[in-house]
Amino acid sequence: MTTTDSPTGTRYDTAAIEADQHVPAVHITRDFDATPEQLLRAHTDPDLFVRWIGPDSTSTRIDHWDARTLGSYRYVNVHEGNEYAFRGTFPEISERRLVQTFCFEEMPEAIALETMSFEDLGGGRTRLHAFSLCDSFEGRDGMLASGMEVGVHEGYAKLDRLLAEGAV
Amino acid sequence: MTTTDSPTGTRYDTAAIEADQHVPAVHITRDFDATPEQLLRAHTDPDLFVRWIGPDSTSTRIDHWDARTLGSYRYVNVHEGNEYAFRGTFPEISERRLVQTFCFEEMPEAIALETMSFEDLGGGRTRLHAFSLCDSFEGRDGMLASGMEVGVHEGYAKLDRLLAEGAV
Repeated sequence: MTTTDSPTGTRYDTAAIEADQHVPAVHITRDFDATPEQLLRAHTDPDLFVRWIGPDSTSTRIDHWDARTLGSYRYVNVHEGNEYAFRGTFPEISERRLVQTFCFEEMPEAIALETMSFEDLGGGRTRLHAFSLCDSFEGRDGMLASGMEVGVHEGYAKLDRLLAEGAV
Repeated sequence: MTTTDSPTGTRYDTAAIEADQHVPAVHITRDFDATPEQLLRAHTDPDLFVRWIGPDSTSTRIDHWDARTLGSYRYVNVHEGNEYAFRGTFPEISERRLVQTFCFEEMPEAIALETMSFEDLGGGRTRLHAFSLCDSFEGRDGMLASGMEVGVHEGYAKLDRLLAEGAV
């Protein structure tokens, strides 16, 4: 977690990944040089999504994608020839908030409920607040211990580059 | 909560509704004279579902129903001429387990993740274990204080009658 205090408050140029103190959830906070509309598009347009999600060592293929309230998705990460499928639903997608369920298909019993909120910081910057709720503290701690931070940091760095290129 | 100890263990002929001690969730436990297949059907067949869900004072109309893994639903409860819409998704439906998100449309910020498991007790009886996970303890306690137990008890009593009639 790298944050820099500035006269205008804390900046999250690198994602802060933190365990919630009360409920079995993880918070991720990350600032982008983007509008909320651009961040929503990066999470809902499948052609954009595959270009940034996950660690640098994997590629992503969309199997099913229906990004709207009550829609669903399934995608496959490919790493060294092995395939890992993830799937879920979208209980709600609105301008400032995207709610999805998320599960790794080989562990279908562990379904997380994730809420991503897009806070307009002004000046073309937006703070992403992601909240991933698990059904137990063991599950949450397992997620934190899984090495997920590599995918978070490398994925958001790819998204930074897409934004800088004007691709979003 | 009415449970009766029997030589074969606790019976849940009336639903037990209990707050989880660790996470912001509610557990409901209820036994039925039904097979797991019948309970799954009662939760996934829209024509059956509307005949038992909710309190006696309401009727239910299906607006959208796609009961399969990655599907979704929306239904409307009608009470004294007023309409209350509920919607959600089905992250997973399998023989012994149904996972859904649930929200009251007038409170879209409060989305619960609900898991219903069907435990075969043998002899044509099945124990329903429902686990409703909220994103905060305040939200969970609000759900418990909302009078939801009326709909749970009356709804399951209607389902008992449908099962006794051979309608499921």
